Amino acid sequence: MTSPFNSQSPLDPTSTEPIYRQIYWRFRGAITDGVLAPGERIPAARSLAKELGLARGTVDSAYSLLAAEGYIQPRGQAGTVVAAGLNVRPRQAHTDHPSTPAPGASVRHKAAVLPFQMALPALDEFPRKIWAQIGARCVRATGVADMANPSAQGLESLRNAIASYLQLARGINCLPSQVFVTSGYRNTLTLIVHALLQAGDRALVENPGYPPTRQLLEYLQIGVQPVDVDQDGLQVTQGIDQCPTARAVVVTPAHQSPLCVSLSLPRRLQLLEWAAREQAWIIEDDYDGEYRYVSRPLPALKSLDREGRVLYAGTFSKVLFPGIRIAYLVVPPSQVERFQQVARTFLGGVPELTQAIVSTFVTEGHFARHIQRMRKLYGERRVAAVNGLSKVLGEHIQIDAQPGGMHLILRLTRAQSDRELVERLLNAGIYAEALSECYIGPESQCGLMLGFANIDSQASAERLGERIVALL
Amino acid sequence: MTSPFNSQSPLDPTSTEPIYRQIYWRFRGAITDGVLAPGERIPAARSLAKELGLARGTVDSAYSLLAAEGYIQPRGQAGTVVAAGLNVRPRQAHTDHPSTPAPGASVRHKAAVLPFQMALPALDEFPRKIWAQIGARCVRATGVADMANPSAQGLESLRNAIASYLQLARGINCLPSQVFVTSGYRNTLTLIVHALLQAGDRALVENPGYPPTRQLLEYLQIGVQPVDVDQDGLQVTQGIDQCPTARAVVVTPAHQSPLCVSLSLPRRLQLLEWAAREQAWIIEDDYDGEYRYVSRPLPALKSLDREGRVLYAGTFSKVLFPGIRIAYLVVPPSQVERFQQVARTFLGGVPELTQAIVSTFVTEGHFARHIQRMRKLYGERRVAAVNGLSKVLGEHIQIDAQPGGMHLILRLTRAQSDRELVERLLNAGIYAEALSECYIGPESQCGLMLGFANIDSQASAERLGERIVALL
Repeated sequence: MTSPFNSQSPLDPTSTEPIYRQIYWRFRGAITDGVLAPGERIPAARSLAKELGLARGTVDSAYSLLAAEGYIQPRGQAGTVVAAGLNVRPRQAHTDHPSTPAPGASVRHKAAVLPFQMALPALDEFPRKIWAQIGARCVRATGVADMANPSAQGLESLRNAIASYLQLARGINCLPSQVFVTSGYRNTLTLIVHALLQAGDRALVENPGYPPTRQLLEYLQIGVQPVDVDQDGLQVTQGIDQCPTARAVVVTPAHQSPLCVSLSLPRRLQLLEWAAREQAWIIEDDYDGEYRYVSRPLPALKSLDREGRVLYAGTFSKVLFPGIRIAYLVVPPSQVERFQQVARTFLGGVPELTQAIVSTFVTEGHFARHIQRMRKLYGERRVAAVNGLSKVLGEHIQIDAQPGGMHLILRLTRAQSDRELVERLLNAGIYAEALSECYIGPESQCGLMLGFANIDSQASAERLGERIVALL
Repeated sequence: MTSPFNSQSPLDPTSTEPIYRQIYWRFRGAITDGVLAPGERIPAARSLAKELGLARGTVDSAYSLLAAEGYIQPRGQAGTVVAAGLNVRPRQAHTDHPSTPAPGASVRHKAAVLPFQMALPALDEFPRKIWAQIGARCVRATGVADMANPSAQGLESLRNAIASYLQLARGINCLPSQVFVTSGYRNTLTLIVHALLQAGDRALVENPGYPPTRQLLEYLQIGVQPVDVDQDGLQVTQGIDQCPTARAVVVTPAHQSPLCVSLSLPRRLQLLEWAAREQAWIIEDDYDGEYRYVSRPLPALKSLDREGRVLYAGTFSKVLFPGIRIAYLVVPPSQVERFQQVARTFLGGVPELTQAIVSTFVTEGHFARHIQRMRKLYGERRVAAVNGLSKVLGEHIQIDAQPGGMHLILRLTRAQSDRELVERLLNAGIYAEALSECYIGPESQCGLMLGFANIDSQASAERLGERIVALL
């Protein structure tokens, strides 16, 4: 156990730098200089506080920051250790010694994208040149009125563009005034809960399902009732029987998340009939409805909504890129005023510049072209990934072949924990998610979920498959 | 009473356009064509539904949309009328007849900025050319990694820049890991409530205060305890005595919103002592702490926070422009992990492009220069506005002279309703807000709040003052 404190360099109580920050810097320096090695134990906060004559909370504050930044790892009974595998690199900018990074994007540091990363479109094929041209044009055209307070509901031109697009692509009839621009699905779902539900209400969710949906609902004190999913999607009858008082349901009708099955037409109608009868709400999470490869994309559930019970949640994360942070919500006509009121209270608003860029990209036709190209490309990449992985992993896995979505599910033929396997893969630089993490309750299925949109050829898939085999 | 329906042009039940939308378009067309005149009554939903043989809800949906878009106004007993003063203009883009607007920013439609608009910096003096150059550079430099999933906490380079800036400008020692980038003050406050408070908790707020603060808290089921403000800011002793169980307080120490007074040092220390003793939280809303004209800006309350009880909410809305939609939060070291967890669940995230532009603008030094220039300019514009308005309105008003902020408070010497006066001013194209709207409870003071940052000369202020005199 090593401590970076000794009588030659005491802490300075007269410094303007608070003591916890002096401790923080001392440890950080010792770690990045290699004085403290990865895996090495550091003193318990209590004993260090005693040694230095400080309040325990002061050392706790320093340790919290070191842990939050990944320098140290609490290991329970085993004490706290310097993080293993720490890629120590000189950090250039911090508050004491501000540096001046080179202009432009060089100030950004980002982790690399891993192969099989999920929910990530083919970034290599994004029309970045056109995007940059439109972006530069919109930046230069920013006028005084564009800098003033933006509409909480979103830029009018973007809401027009979204309404037009939804009619053509998803069969949804709506007016721009029914569209609310948000900063992502979580933002959309939060807005819906604040507008239509109350703490203590119950909502049906898919099981397996998208974990953030139930996390967010639970944070907002909505009771979550898991409902099983089969090859036709959510088992609607089971859900209604299990929880007759549910006020809402969250569904992914186009490609169920994570199983990629589609909600059958009889079940769609059954859901709509239930919602109309019970005055309940259907939240349609249409996160990648555009990406279907075998036949035409199915119209959205919202397109069948005659009684105004469906809240439609769309996003540009998958059809443009996740960093864009623009999603949208279509609300029934009767709820527009209610949502405007809640939006004024809660929505932070999306930068006008980003809205203007997306709006221009859509109205100039680049968006429709891009989706068409990606649909074709993903169809090819899906086949390449399936073929490459099957060839190498054939005896170990079985691949669910669903007609849409952006990821594959690999069922493991040998019983093993998908979570442990995922951890081994991540350590080896290969992205995967464990299917079992999507289940609520004790019964779950194992499997690996792999995003295929960035797999550029069968050869790449085979190479990656070989690395996976070695870790099975 | 006029109805746009007759036997010559019945609704078409076989159309793909839902009936409510057909009704909507029919009314909208009649209004924009002048067939229905402003102020004219339209049929009650019930009788129109009966006349057309439709469900009442169908007509209600159409009316809701027309009301939400401002075409009609419900007037209670007097029925529903076509909105008065409707500035009818041809709307170019809607879902049925998508148009192709000209490229770039011409797709944006915005209301003009009114004179005396509040919370709006001097947009005419913003360095738009530099901004556009940086923006275009950042757009072009967008790489694959920048398009992938962004950090919920914010871009590292921006958090570095904010931490450096806060140390220099606001006396706050913090590490970038304590900084969370949000999409605005409402977003910041929501994050704090989700992380640290529970439904049913009580919070002290200033009275008069910033209405959105209490609205948001009430939406989130936090009980709001108003505490009076005097010339030294929030009356801390009164607040603690009135509500000993309060878990938090929201304060605007630099320039109290709306009275612009500063929270005195004894009261700052008293608040910190209370928070440490009760393990309560101080939420410091430092929305325009940079703008003080008489002496140097006061350090933030956060700079005195030794016990980690202050949540510091800053924003770029006033020092850059409101449309930017970037704000930030500094949390105590011990709360970083908790906030990271909540941020992953709730924060939609701010577009990377906007974060990169702001980060570059700050690190290249433009930000500090801009604030210095604006501080000088606003000092001049404040004097020009005070002198111009006093000259013309002298006998009718008394102007509160506070050393900071971005708005003036005009006390009316003759007893009259500030809300009615504000309505008359807005109808005449002059912005103002009513001071009485900032009070909770029956006791309130009247006054007009006028933003001065966009008043470019004493002559402008005099001209506007003359228009105000005519409306008193």
